Amino acid sequence: MDGRIDELLRTGASTPGLISLGGGLPASDLFPRRALAASFLRAVSEPNAAALQYGWPEGNERLRAWVAARLRRRGADVDSSDVIMTSGAQQALAVATQVLFRRGARVSCDPETYSSALDLFEARGLLAVPDQERVEGFYTMPAMSNPRGLCMTDEQRRALLRRARVSHAVIIEDDAYAEIRWGSPLPRPLLADDRAHVWHVGTFSKTLSPGLRVGWLVVPRRFRRRALEAKNALDLQANSLAQELLADFLTRNDYDALVERASRFYRRRAKNLVRALARRIPELRFAMPEGGFTVWAESDIEGDDAALLETAIAQGVSFEPGRIFRLDKRASPITMRLSFASEPTPRQIEGVDRLARAIAAYRRAGRRAARHAA
Amino acid sequence: MDGRIDELLRTGASTPGLISLGGGLPASDLFPRRALAASFLRAVSEPNAAALQYGWPEGNERLRAWVAARLRRRGADVDSSDVIMTSGAQQALAVATQVLFRRGARVSCDPETYSSALDLFEARGLLAVPDQERVEGFYTMPAMSNPRGLCMTDEQRRALLRRARVSHAVIIEDDAYAEIRWGSPLPRPLLADDRAHVWHVGTFSKTLSPGLRVGWLVVPRRFRRRALEAKNALDLQANSLAQELLADFLTRNDYDALVERASRFYRRRAKNLVRALARRIPELRFAMPEGGFTVWAESDIEGDDAALLETAIAQGVSFEPGRIFRLDKRASPITMRLSFASEPTPRQIEGVDRLARAIAAYRRAGRRAARHAA
Repeated sequence: MDGRIDELLRTGASTPGLISLGGGLPASDLFPRRALAASFLRAVSEPNAAALQYGWPEGNERLRAWVAARLRRRGADVDSSDVIMTSGAQQALAVATQVLFRRGARVSCDPETYSSALDLFEARGLLAVPDQERVEGFYTMPAMSNPRGLCMTDEQRRALLRRARVSHAVIIEDDAYAEIRWGSPLPRPLLADDRAHVWHVGTFSKTLSPGLRVGWLVVPRRFRRRALEAKNALDLQANSLAQELLADFLTRNDYDALVERASRFYRRRAKNLVRALARRIPELRFAMPEGGFTVWAESDIEGDDAALLETAIAQGVSFEPGRIFRLDKRASPITMRLSFASEPTPRQIEGVDRLARAIAAYRRAGRRAARHAA
Repeated sequence: MDGRIDELLRTGASTPGLISLGGGLPASDLFPRRALAASFLRAVSEPNAAALQYGWPEGNERLRAWVAARLRRRGADVDSSDVIMTSGAQQALAVATQVLFRRGARVSCDPETYSSALDLFEARGLLAVPDQERVEGFYTMPAMSNPRGLCMTDEQRRALLRRARVSHAVIIEDDAYAEIRWGSPLPRPLLADDRAHVWHVGTFSKTLSPGLRVGWLVVPRRFRRRALEAKNALDLQANSLAQELLADFLTRNDYDALVERASRFYRRRAKNLVRALARRIPELRFAMPEGGFTVWAESDIEGDDAALLETAIAQGVSFEPGRIFRLDKRASPITMRLSFASEPTPRQIEGVDRLARAIAAYRRAGRRAARHAA
């Protein structure tokens, strides 16, 4: 990430009273703390102490079976040996890109996409491009996109699978936000339609807790060994503590009910944020998301999204500058990702008011500068 | 790692009653389960739920301050902003190599060294070489080596620092086993003598619990930003759960006392293993280690260490074939790494008996094969 933006986001996070419309943090209220604590205590008192000991690089067998069973329910031919537990979805992406691509490879992405995937591609010397031809891979979030919070139509899914086949390209399917949804039922993953060319990524970070750092990667069978070697070289294994805790938690709690409750909760917050935006900052263009944590807002403001963020922080609100999600890294016209996930609604409404004031102040400063220049 | 050896080690691990002299697993008996559980419960009930939420890529501030203070006690000029918490020591190595080296770079290592570092170097296209000239980096365990369990002399340390300076090479100082020691006091780290060229790696895996997956990387200041970006791209952050738990644990428990107790415990086990080896398999060459978890044993047996492992598993004992630690990957003459850490002494003695029988059986089979060939 851009150094200046990183610094601004840190300044924002340490500003007392600041309202954060930035970040992809889930609502802490939803963490099932008591149930997680009970599972921890059971895991840590197991005689073999597996929660505190080393494990195999592929991770906990019960968790892998759970992931495989959920994907089978969605139509994919997956068994537990196809699943590698990872240190969050981010590491699943790191393993996939390490095995699949050499420096200089071209990877097709949406024009706006998950910022840390773009950071990873850059660190690996990969080129994230909007093109769909002459690419070696597609990085995509078909079930629920980030930052827009939209689900691909069946037709879009079929077209993507077709294009990948024609280009002999692999697909990295990032399902991180898939379960947080209200616009449509959980779709069939691309994995179900092209098991040999789709690498599938998931996580507990959005539904349960990101602090656990447990995600997963489903790999085509011929790549299993190389993916495991890459995972092992990166950090040996995902942490045993959270894996054992989760394996216990998932047998004792109704994950589907929890996910449904979370989706209802986030939908309410999304509606309230969208309503406040429409009322207070009508000049922004955005759509009510179908899921996820965020709204993607576009403006006609020529300028610099980082400079606007600086003004916003002075007004007591933060957001994520659109450029970190954009393939072209453009700072202008200003776009932003606004999260409705972590702050309670009254604070979000107040945050939108502050953002409106920040935009007005930013425009005034721009006009003053233009007059000076004239 | 070699596929066949991986398979054999897995077979061994799932063989009921097998005695493991392989692996780098700490003794589960030493895990301070009750204190860790108490810290977990405190961490998870903090109002802000930081243990379950996302954090910054550099990790928990209190932990970083703790690491820095310990290194300052050993003479190094380190403050908390120089420390990055990582997903175990392995990830610290992954971050360091990613930032420091391009494919094809030559990295100087001991003739036998930590096997997963060698795997990492291979995955990154680096060449691990025994040479000390025309290299871009040195990978070294000066405070306590793996697999031999030896501490460098002051003279060796000075020579290494000098050679690195002459070659304009960086040093990656792996301190993973440093605290588990009985031969000499904890030495001044290389970091203390060349802050600008030493990358220092540590972990809680050997002293507290590897299942937590929390280690650290201390970087030269001019590399801080790039190292943080690399860490972020790999998995965003080390798991919050274990970090918050450890931050609490370390303020309430006497880490030095715990480390001293662990060192005494492992020293007893080391002595007993070494005594059993000397008595039952006198043909092996090995030294009583000064610390760590393992004994490095060399033989004159011409053959294949993986084939001997197979025979050993049939006899109910496993070890780690020397080739996975050797730069030259040689399987013959047979060497092995024997761990005294995880099994109680009576089982280790029985394990040595089984190993003696396995070696005898392996020799007989070799002679039979030679007669057939003759």
